Amino acid sequence: MKLNNEYVEKILVEFLKNEISRTGISKAVIGLSGGIDSAVSTFLTVKALGRENVYCVLMPYKSSSKESITDANLVVDALKVRSETIEITEMVDAYIKKLPDREISNVRKGNIMARMRMIVLYDISAREKALVIGTGNKTELLLGYSTLFGDSACAINPLGDLYKTQVFSLAKHLGVPEQIINKKPSADLWEGQTDEQELGITYESVDNYLFQKIDERLNEEDLVKLGYDAEYMKRIDIMVSRNQFKRLPPVIAKVSNRTINVDFRYNRDWNT
Amino acid sequence: MKLNNEYVEKILVEFLKNEISRTGISKAVIGLSGGIDSAVSTFLTVKALGRENVYCVLMPYKSSSKESITDANLVVDALKVRSETIEITEMVDAYIKKLPDREISNVRKGNIMARMRMIVLYDISAREKALVIGTGNKTELLLGYSTLFGDSACAINPLGDLYKTQVFSLAKHLGVPEQIINKKPSADLWEGQTDEQELGITYESVDNYLFQKIDERLNEEDLVKLGYDAEYMKRIDIMVSRNQFKRLPPVIAKVSNRTINVDFRYNRDWNT
Repeated sequence: MKLNNEYVEKILVEFLKNEISRTGISKAVIGLSGGIDSAVSTFLTVKALGRENVYCVLMPYKSSSKESITDANLVVDALKVRSETIEITEMVDAYIKKLPDREISNVRKGNIMARMRMIVLYDISAREKALVIGTGNKTELLLGYSTLFGDSACAINPLGDLYKTQVFSLAKHLGVPEQIINKKPSADLWEGQTDEQELGITYESVDNYLFQKIDERLNEEDLVKLGYDAEYMKRIDIMVSRNQFKRLPPVIAKVSNRTINVDFRYNRDWNT
Repeated sequence: MKLNNEYVEKILVEFLKNEISRTGISKAVIGLSGGIDSAVSTFLTVKALGRENVYCVLMPYKSSSKESITDANLVVDALKVRSETIEITEMVDAYIKKLPDREISNVRKGNIMARMRMIVLYDISAREKALVIGTGNKTELLLGYSTLFGDSACAINPLGDLYKTQVFSLAKHLGVPEQIINKKPSADLWEGQTDEQELGITYESVDNYLFQKIDERLNEEDLVKLGYDAEYMKRIDIMVSRNQFKRLPPVIAKVSNRTINVDFRYNRDWNT
């Protein structure tokens, strides 16, 4: 669980260099939220491509905290990358106005916001001839604490194999501004929201559990010995299972010899 | 290539029943464009779930042809399903107004429209506690003639293993209204657009080629003997390869023992 930050940095920077250049594209766009994940992704991408090839997009909604914008700009200033701010308020509200009673739950609204940001980011990536770099970490992907076709949408994700607590460790190593490292993680979808409060778990505990169960493959008996509560384990396990659909492409009905994502998945299938 | 329509219908209806009920959800939402693919998906889903469990959404843009809406309503009337119309014009235009010169290419605009429709469809699926049923066919998925996180976004896709010409065959068998079967396929993103004109190929020819190359695994020599032109083959092959990213989840950098979508893909990995 403890990260060799120097080594991981090297792997991730090489990964970004290789995967991006393989596509024939030399530029990247990243949505900067003011949080730690997008800050770390940006730091890594600048190391991989140089600051002139990284373009950051800030996409506040009217209810986004001022702090989020300030913190996103700390990253822009620290790295001297080009950036642009496009508010998503009008786009989101144009949809909400169409609803009969203009009422919508926080979760539905949060998903709409995350997906509007995807639209802006992908449109800018087309304009800039750049790839969208992801910011989702392993904790978030496993728990499904992200919006499908929203904040999880990207071409290449350097953070998807790092638990949230490991992202913090790497952030310190990379010199991400202290203010970003020290604040409580939040999706900033409504005022005062924090991830840990919403999920009802701490990253420290859930990261340790997921690491021991998934990476170390400990069985239930061993996990109980380590002090994990049966209720707690069940709750997390269900989250991981239920959100599997967010990590995989849509299920396609098989009727032919060679079905996309079943028998026909990789370019090597095609070339042989 | 010739479809046993009766048999395929049976497989697809069973597939929809099983895959939907597996999730614990009993309802489906489908975006109806007025075209043949979404009509066939709707006919199949109604056979699987009953008309009371299928909800259709029409999402015209101001430039959508009147014919598209009329044809979508032919499906609603034929199947007596519930439906709702939500125009995406204000949402799309709210973004375009933000662009410095309000100018945007047709391709970028088409992607924004497709993604706005995804947002509406997924929000309605949350409201209705329903799954989004896909409408992308095998030709479109292989050629990448669809918008990532847009019209290709769905939970379950009954048509993804049928070439476009096979979708036509199934449509006739299912009794999809003639008017929909007889018109030229179009993404209806701008006036007068037709798929075949935009792609510069006919579905008949490209479907035969893809079927022989992918499903039948004919090699280049055999394909040349069948009369395919080297230029033509190269062009199609490149489209299939280049658009592979649209068919797979984002690439995640591997730094741990068990990486999402590398060593940790299926629920069976988790349960063992």
